[in-house]
Amino acid sequence: MTFDYAARRARLAESLAGHEVHALLVTSPVNVRYLTGLASSNAAVLVGADGGAVLATDNRYIGAARALDLPVVEAADVAARLLTPSPGAQEGTRGVGIEAGCMSVATYLRLGEGLVPLGPVVERLRAVKDEQELDLIRTACALTDQAFADVAPRIAPGMTERELARLLEQRMAELGADKPAFDTIVAAGENGAVPHHSPTGRELRAGDLVTIDFGARYQGYHADMTRTVSLGPPAAWQRELYDLVAEAQRAGRHALTPGAGAREVDSAARSIVALAGHGEHFRHGLGHGVGLEIHEEPFLGPSRTGRLEDRVPITVEPGVYLPDRGGVRIEDTLVTREGGPELFTKTTKELLVL
Amino acid sequence: MTFDYAARRARLAESLAGHEVHALLVTSPVNVRYLTGLASSNAAVLVGADGGAVLATDNRYIGAARALDLPVVEAADVAARLLTPSPGAQEGTRGVGIEAGCMSVATYLRLGEGLVPLGPVVERLRAVKDEQELDLIRTACALTDQAFADVAPRIAPGMTERELARLLEQRMAELGADKPAFDTIVAAGENGAVPHHSPTGRELRAGDLVTIDFGARYQGYHADMTRTVSLGPPAAWQRELYDLVAEAQRAGRHALTPGAGAREVDSAARSIVALAGHGEHFRHGLGHGVGLEIHEEPFLGPSRTGRLEDRVPITVEPGVYLPDRGGVRIEDTLVTREGGPELFTKTTKELLVL
Repeated sequence: MTFDYAARRARLAESLAGHEVHALLVTSPVNVRYLTGLASSNAAVLVGADGGAVLATDNRYIGAARALDLPVVEAADVAARLLTPSPGAQEGTRGVGIEAGCMSVATYLRLGEGLVPLGPVVERLRAVKDEQELDLIRTACALTDQAFADVAPRIAPGMTERELARLLEQRMAELGADKPAFDTIVAAGENGAVPHHSPTGRELRAGDLVTIDFGARYQGYHADMTRTVSLGPPAAWQRELYDLVAEAQRAGRHALTPGAGAREVDSAARSIVALAGHGEHFRHGLGHGVGLEIHEEPFLGPSRTGRLEDRVPITVEPGVYLPDRGGVRIEDTLVTREGGPELFTKTTKELLVL
Repeated sequence: MTFDYAARRARLAESLAGHEVHALLVTSPVNVRYLTGLASSNAAVLVGADGGAVLATDNRYIGAARALDLPVVEAADVAARLLTPSPGAQEGTRGVGIEAGCMSVATYLRLGEGLVPLGPVVERLRAVKDEQELDLIRTACALTDQAFADVAPRIAPGMTERELARLLEQRMAELGADKPAFDTIVAAGENGAVPHHSPTGRELRAGDLVTIDFGARYQGYHADMTRTVSLGPPAAWQRELYDLVAEAQRAGRHALTPGAGAREVDSAARSIVALAGHGEHFRHGLGHGVGLEIHEEPFLGPSRTGRLEDRVPITVEPGVYLPDRGGVRIEDTLVTREGGPELFTKTTKELLVL
């Protein structure tokens, strides 16, 4: 997939007008990929407020870099190389911006004076996707749905959390995923009380709620979905918890419109959980953007600011976690649309009894 | 697996005596794990030169943290929390060290004055492993060998690079790996000229050399192995290239003794490649430490300093890459030992003709 990288850099150049810099030194690998198409572990691109750009990478990636649509220099120390003015170059009267959330202190101190630490400038541009990007995320989510559909019939007592995680990851790979979008979570019974539980050798048992949080990465773009299933008929408290989380999740999805505040969307779901007396058992944010990273701008939470725009893929994932008993989380990936959100993860949200 | 984390923190405290700090704020997730046992994406531990330590993490990991052997505080902003003196605490006369290679500029500027940027202090401690850690790396390498043995008979013309990568990753998971140690490289024919090639839909063909660089992660510890195989009988130039790289690799392994210089080991292999006229076609370092990270201290290369110690797991991986034609890389994971290195990856280094 090739994107219009020059157009992305032009948008970045425009957005630099609001900062006291004549250029931005982009060192976040995912931001470099977004602006140039180069996937690497060591590259930087200097984008001028005038729209010019130079890419630097080391000998491992230089071949791939030379095939791209911008000037390239080879260097091991990519940041330093891009900050070395070419002979005769005119000094800018403004400084060079750096990505303060990404650059290490060691690099910063080594590069010396004249650097202007900036926030997530490129990340904010990345939040709004074009239709090409949405196609990739839609495909990543379809692979995720399909893997769940294929594996669900095999979920049964005696299978371990780790085995189930492996089956899902294996099936996603067979279906064409690059790799899992993140480390798959399978949390059975009491382990469901831990939002970020790592799969263990614990066997699934009749009477367990099992929380399954996973997704595919496809051509660099991520999917994220959580379903909680019941092994055997659920107890009353399990059914009640499930229905509560499902209602909160629905409210969160419905609040997802361009123009909505990040806090307001969070609150639409959280207030339902809180009214049911479980506010203290839902302690993470409601959702996060997805794209070239699994967690990216924007974030939905009680202390988040900002408003959603159109074409922002984002998760809605309330959860209730009861210490030592278990938990329920239900999560979709959706994209904001003027007419209402488009749902990317289409697996049913009825409680599956397996 | 439980390690003696208190002993690790005591060693760190000792090593702080050489720096002008009264404590080190450890924010690298893998270093936090090494010093406390907590695997998380948001935690920090403050280790005093007096041997005291406090761990901070957020509500997602606080349950796991409370089960550990040191005092714990809950906070979202873990670094800031650990730098807030408790009421009545005496100000240290020295500053607090930070991990300059890991902390972001944004965090550094936010935390304010009195921080002393330090180099890879914990990474240097991590370079030398104890026998428990070596057992885990040995197991990770055995899984890697076994996956290769199981998949090799299926390598045949018509299979794509991506399919082969997937088979290896799937087999490692079935054998008990946590996950792949890194993104598997499969590079067939001309793609072998790119050291960090990502697997594509290119089909393997008779006459190809195929470079396969992969490994398992087991209980957090990594394995790293590369083999180059031939599809059908190799041409004379392919055989010659293979024998050259194998000879260089052997020389590198033999140079791997406690006390040897990082540059000297690199040179043992590189000089053989250079003498054959291929110096410019071997442009990466000879190897790197492995442990909780796939690439960690120490590094072997022409501009690396320092000497190897005993019980340092490390790779030896010379390669020769001929633009547009192909390449050969052969890589083992070994550990330095007083009596000579112990080989962890045991797959044959005879040229396999498949």
